[in-house]
Amino acid sequence: MLNFIHDIPTRLYFGRGQIAHLDEALRAFGTRVLLTYGGGSIKKTGLYGEVMDILNKGGFAVTELGGIEPNPRIESVEEGVRLCKERGVEVILAVGGGSTIDCSKAIAAGVFYEGDLWQMVESEHGALKALPLVDILTLSATGSEFDGGGVISNLKLRKKLGNMFTYPAVSICDPSYTFSVPAYHTAAGAADIMSHIFEGYFSRTEDSDLSDSIAEGVLTAAIKYLPIALQEPDHYAARANLMAISSVACSGIPEYGKQPTFWPCHAMEHELSAYYDITHGVGLAILTPRWMRHILKKDPSCLWRFTRFARKVWGLENDDELALAQEGIDQLENFYREAGIPMTLSELGIGTEHFKAMAAHANRGGRLEKAFVPLNNEDIEEIFRACL
Amino acid sequence: MLNFIHDIPTRLYFGRGQIAHLDEALRAFGTRVLLTYGGGSIKKTGLYGEVMDILNKGGFAVTELGGIEPNPRIESVEEGVRLCKERGVEVILAVGGGSTIDCSKAIAAGVFYEGDLWQMVESEHGALKALPLVDILTLSATGSEFDGGGVISNLKLRKKLGNMFTYPAVSICDPSYTFSVPAYHTAAGAADIMSHIFEGYFSRTEDSDLSDSIAEGVLTAAIKYLPIALQEPDHYAARANLMAISSVACSGIPEYGKQPTFWPCHAMEHELSAYYDITHGVGLAILTPRWMRHILKKDPSCLWRFTRFARKVWGLENDDELALAQEGIDQLENFYREAGIPMTLSELGIGTEHFKAMAAHANRGGRLEKAFVPLNNEDIEEIFRACL
Repeated sequence: MLNFIHDIPTRLYFGRGQIAHLDEALRAFGTRVLLTYGGGSIKKTGLYGEVMDILNKGGFAVTELGGIEPNPRIESVEEGVRLCKERGVEVILAVGGGSTIDCSKAIAAGVFYEGDLWQMVESEHGALKALPLVDILTLSATGSEFDGGGVISNLKLRKKLGNMFTYPAVSICDPSYTFSVPAYHTAAGAADIMSHIFEGYFSRTEDSDLSDSIAEGVLTAAIKYLPIALQEPDHYAARANLMAISSVACSGIPEYGKQPTFWPCHAMEHELSAYYDITHGVGLAILTPRWMRHILKKDPSCLWRFTRFARKVWGLENDDELALAQEGIDQLENFYREAGIPMTLSELGIGTEHFKAMAAHANRGGRLEKAFVPLNNEDIEEIFRACL
Repeated sequence: MLNFIHDIPTRLYFGRGQIAHLDEALRAFGTRVLLTYGGGSIKKTGLYGEVMDILNKGGFAVTELGGIEPNPRIESVEEGVRLCKERGVEVILAVGGGSTIDCSKAIAAGVFYEGDLWQMVESEHGALKALPLVDILTLSATGSEFDGGGVISNLKLRKKLGNMFTYPAVSICDPSYTFSVPAYHTAAGAADIMSHIFEGYFSRTEDSDLSDSIAEGVLTAAIKYLPIALQEPDHYAARANLMAISSVACSGIPEYGKQPTFWPCHAMEHELSAYYDITHGVGLAILTPRWMRHILKKDPSCLWRFTRFARKVWGLENDDELALAQEGIDQLENFYREAGIPMTLSELGIGTEHFKAMAAHANRGGRLEKAFVPLNNEDIEEIFRACL
């Protein structure tokens, strides 16, 4: 087990009706609020009205920034920073999924950042000085409600980059707010959750048992509850389990004590999103089984991790270890397909034209050469091609 | 899944050499330090010298409170509070196991508490205003390094009571500091860790999958690594896994979303410790299998939890579900016995003389009537007798 630091200051209010804590959570920081949200689904579901009632009754001064994109863009960050400075905002309230929360983290940090905001996204740093952030989660996927990171896109530069900005001070996680999430995004969200686990689970470290148990628990819960949530969108236990695992999956906890793996599927998916603006979880679902088959073939010494995955997560058994490993991967691909996720890039209208450039950027600085199984540019191109 | 709040502000530095963070961790709060420790084992191991070197080099003004008892007493709390007030202490540094950390939490809160300190231990309250607390953990057991609670004894009143005081600001968890822990206390510590899981695992809630996975992960890690640590005391991975699970086991996390169970074995064990000053983990190891057999007999509707325990934790299988459940409990009792824990009260010289009064106090206010399987005073006496 390697050394690690656990330092997550976020308070989570989890469960039905936890919005009752919203007033006190904001008021601890001030009364001038920037309210951020996405495309307006919160207006259809009534959550926007509920939030505004609380803010108005509490006498909060609200500035709104709606329309934050599914892959949030640097222009939204810039606009949010401008509004915060202009209105003297004291606390940001993000109502939405990972995109809205990610963008809000970058805004919170951007208020204090001196220099160009895209440079803040690109440069290396840890958590930054930031405005306090409170969020109300409406999608179980990215785990942004319980980590300090955010992913921001720059479509002009065809770049989508993750960085550390700030942790939410408070996250209100009410599973019933996800009842209205359509099947496609429910499935993509689960694929995102599962990918956060895969990225750390496939590591050389063999003796970090608690992390591995948590990882396997997250995966088995996703596999159990995603089909239920798709079948019965207002099944509380299904939505609650998906929401609880979303928070832990991306928190770093399932990787404690383990060798860093440099998250190869995320690196590759960010290229897909940057070039084609596709749904992040869908890109991950398409890439993951192909990446698994590629590395298992390239480096048979990682077989033990795949057989463990097949046994512990899928409950499979086979005396032929290689066949067992492959069955585990096949199960995963079938699981995503049965959840309604388009499982090829062709279905999304994506061809080979940018694969070379995408592979080069995914592997910038040779960082994927340090992955669980090292990947060079040719490996990455091959994985992209296997996704067609 | 029931509602829950996650709010653990403690920063954990986990792993070898993390004492390198001690100076900065203390300095964030001040330079006048109360250093607390137990019976002096840290002087034998050299950790005391290492800590004092850092404190002296850093120019900290140190007041010492050594000799904190294994079941820390109210008199030590009173003495600590007196020293803090007299010396204007700004931060407490606890070096030791759960007893030292528990006592230090009560001291930290006691500094600001108006009124009698035993009343602070007895009265109902949440986290209190407190001096900041930094700890260096030397025993994997109570999880006090990652929760806000403490247990304080009043031998005059024959009372041992747990309460919420304050969370450590920083916990330095270096598994190599536990290499020197003798076999008896290593085993007792593991029994304490496992009991923290059992107390929440045996609950009526069926749909809190992540919590249950974490619980099962903690138990399987304890079962795997305790025998290794006993065989080879300086086996890093074994000590590291035991330390990591100790922190999570008592954090509340394995109970998130689950019905409260009122921790019956801890309630019963506190009576044993209050009357006989025995090692907490040993009392828990003796009580737990007897409690399990008693409730399984009293309420067969809880069979499903025991069969899950037998399957998931021990890897057992048996078509006869009742036999399977009993095998799981037998395995647990054998596991403790093989770890060298005396598994009867008679071996500790404890007889029946106080069982009636102990049962009545364990069940004060009828609180164990609300446990997973409700226990009345007669049930508790019967469990004590089964331990003889």
